Amino acid sequence: MRSIRVQTASADYPVFVQPGLLKKLAAQLQRIGGEQRSIFVVTSPEIWSHWGEAFQASFAAKKIEVSPLFVPSGERHKRLAIVERLAEQMSHAGAKRDAFLIAFGGGVIGDMTGFLAAIYMRGICYVQAPTTYLAQIDSSVGGKTGVNLRVGKNMVGSFHHPLAVFCDPQILSTLPPRELRAGIVESVKAAVLGDARYFAWLERNLDKLLAGEEKPLTQAIETSVRIKATIVSADERESGQRMLLNLGHTVGHAIESSTRYRGLLHGEAVAWGMLAAVHLAQARAALSSIQAERIEQLLFRLGPFPRFLASAQSLLERTAADKKHLQRAHRFVLPVAIGKAIVVEDVSQKELLAAIQSMLRIMKERGV
Amino acid sequence: MRSIRVQTASADYPVFVQPGLLKKLAAQLQRIGGEQRSIFVVTSPEIWSHWGEAFQASFAAKKIEVSPLFVPSGERHKRLAIVERLAEQMSHAGAKRDAFLIAFGGGVIGDMTGFLAAIYMRGICYVQAPTTYLAQIDSSVGGKTGVNLRVGKNMVGSFHHPLAVFCDPQILSTLPPRELRAGIVESVKAAVLGDARYFAWLERNLDKLLAGEEKPLTQAIETSVRIKATIVSADERESGQRMLLNLGHTVGHAIESSTRYRGLLHGEAVAWGMLAAVHLAQARAALSSIQAERIEQLLFRLGPFPRFLASAQSLLERTAADKKHLQRAHRFVLPVAIGKAIVVEDVSQKELLAAIQSMLRIMKERGV
Repeated sequence: MRSIRVQTASADYPVFVQPGLLKKLAAQLQRIGGEQRSIFVVTSPEIWSHWGEAFQASFAAKKIEVSPLFVPSGERHKRLAIVERLAEQMSHAGAKRDAFLIAFGGGVIGDMTGFLAAIYMRGICYVQAPTTYLAQIDSSVGGKTGVNLRVGKNMVGSFHHPLAVFCDPQILSTLPPRELRAGIVESVKAAVLGDARYFAWLERNLDKLLAGEEKPLTQAIETSVRIKATIVSADERESGQRMLLNLGHTVGHAIESSTRYRGLLHGEAVAWGMLAAVHLAQARAALSSIQAERIEQLLFRLGPFPRFLASAQSLLERTAADKKHLQRAHRFVLPVAIGKAIVVEDVSQKELLAAIQSMLRIMKERGV
Repeated sequence: MRSIRVQTASADYPVFVQPGLLKKLAAQLQRIGGEQRSIFVVTSPEIWSHWGEAFQASFAAKKIEVSPLFVPSGERHKRLAIVERLAEQMSHAGAKRDAFLIAFGGGVIGDMTGFLAAIYMRGICYVQAPTTYLAQIDSSVGGKTGVNLRVGKNMVGSFHHPLAVFCDPQILSTLPPRELRAGIVESVKAAVLGDARYFAWLERNLDKLLAGEEKPLTQAIETSVRIKATIVSADERESGQRMLLNLGHTVGHAIESSTRYRGLLHGEAVAWGMLAAVHLAQARAALSSIQAERIEQLLFRLGPFPRFLASAQSLLERTAADKKHLQRAHRFVLPVAIGKAIVVEDVSQKELLAAIQSMLRIMKERGV
C-alpha cells in the first residue's frame, strides 16, 4: 500500500490514504504490532453510529478486542477534564504502558487522543484514523496534540507522533458538506504556500471534490498530506518552515477567538484569514493582482462563508495575543505567489489593520 | 561551582549542590539565559513563608521579576485540575513559549511544575529548586514529571528534564525531622543498590545527618544524586537499569496505595518495602545474613516507622496492580549485596507473600 512518510528528528511514520482502508484497519495494526496489546478506540457517538460497525467488523475478523471510549463532539469538550476521565477509564480497564490508542474522529478527537497517549503513564503508542477531511489532511499529521484552556485554544499539549495515520476517503461520505468545504480551505492554503500545480489542479477539480468523488478526494488528501509532511519533516517544532502552515491563521485565530469558537468552522475562519493575508500581500506589492484574484476566486467557490461580528480593532488586538507571536512585532505568513509563502517579521499594526478592514469589507459583501 | 551532570539521549544538565545556593539562584539563572524571559516560581505557602524572602532577595538584587504561583501542599493536590489552574494563571499573566518556570518546593511541587512545563504551549523550560531532602536527591533528578489520577499515583505525566537542578542543603533546616529521616531512606536505597562505600559512609555519618549538619548533608546529597544521575543517564526511559531505582518500591507502593497515601511518608513506605526485599533476597540465599542485618540496622536507625493496617494478601494483590509490572509474573528488584541490586523476573507469588509476611512481623515488633 502506498504511503506518505513523515520523518522528523523524533519520529518516522507512514500516512496511508486509501478508499476502503477502514476495513483493513485491524490488519494494518497487526503489521505494526498493535494487536498484542490492550487497544482502546477514542471516538464520538456520532462517528461510532455511522462507522462503528465497520470498525468493529475489521477487528472482529482478526479476533482483536477493542474497547471504545466515547467523548462528546465539539471543541468545547477538548479539555483536560475529559482527558483525565479517559485516563481513569483506561486505568480501570487495566491499561498499562503497552496499551494502544486509536483516535477515530475529527481533529478534536485526534488532538485529545494524541495528548492522552502522550501523558498516559508518561507516554503510550497511538495511531490516527481521522474521519473528517480537515483531520485527514491536517491535524492528524505532525504530532501536535493538546487541549484548550478557558483562556485559549491548544494552550496545553505535547508533541507526540502517532505510529501511523490511516485516512479512508470513503468515511467522508457521512461528513456534512459544510465541513468538507471548510476542510478544503486548508488544502487551498497548502497549495498557496507550497504547490502551484496543486493549486491549478484544485481549480480544475474543485467541483468533483465538492461532489464527494472518491478518486479526486483521494488525490487531494494525498497531495495535501504530502505538502504538510514535507514541511513537518523539515521542521518538527515550528522554529522555521513549519510556521508557513499558519498562512491565514493569524487573523483566522483572531476571528475564532473573538467569536468564541462558535458560528464559524476553523476552515471558514482560515478562509477569511487568507483573504486578509492576500490583501496584505497585495498592498505590499508582494503578490500580483492576477494571482491574488485566483486565490480569492478559489476560496469564494468554497463559500459562502458565515459573517461574524467583530471590529477591525478588536481583531487586531487579538492577533497580538496570538500565541504564535513571541514579540510585539507582527510576524506574518505572506503569500508571495501561488505556490510560495514566506514568513516576515516586520508587519506593522497599520498594515495589518488595513488588511483586516479589507477582509471585513469583503465579508459584508459576500458573507452569509 | 561543582556540579553533577545528567546526560541522557534527550537532555544534558547540571545538578548543583551547595549550601547557600538559594542566594545565588538569580545569578545562576542568568547564566543559563533565564533572566530575559517571564519567570514564574511554583511554590507552596509553607515554603514561601520560610524561604520566600530569601528567594525574592536573590532576584531583586538582579532586578529580575518573578511571579509566584501557589499550590496547596500535599499529595492529594497533585492533580490535573491544579496544573490546569496554574496554566490559566500563567496565560492570564501573558506567559508565552519563552516563559520559564522554577519549581520551588518538595516532590509534589517538582512533579507538577515539571509537568506544567512539559505541556504549557507544548513545552517550556524550567529548573528545579527542591526544598526537601527527598526532592533534592531523588524526584528533582531524572525528568519524570506528572500528577495522580484517582486510580493511582503518577498515572499521567511526561518525561521532561529541567535545564538545571539547584539543591541548597541549608533549606533543609526548616524541614520537619520526620521528613528528613524518611528522605534518607532513599539514600540508603541508593547505597544498597549501587555504592557499598556510600553505605559504609552512611553507617558512620547517619547521626550527623540526622542532626542536620551541613557538611555531611551536602556530601550525602551529592553522592545520592550522583548514583541516580549515573543510572538515569544510562537509561532515561526505565527500560533497564533505571528499574533498579525501584528497590523497595514494589511493596512500598502497595503499602502507600492500601493506606491511601495517608499515615506514611513515601520514604517510610519504602523502608518497609526494602525490609521485604531484603527478606526475599535472604530467603533466596541471594544476600548474606550479615549484609541483610547491616541494611536492616541502618534502616532501623532511621525509624521507628509508622505501622499500618493491611493484610499480607491485600498487599500482595496490590503489588500485581503496580504499574511497574507489565505481566502477571513478578518483576522484583533484589538486593544481592550491599552496593549491588539486580532486576529479576521470576519472583513467585509465594515468595513475595512470605517476604511481605516477614515484613509485617517486623512491623508489629518495631513499628510505632
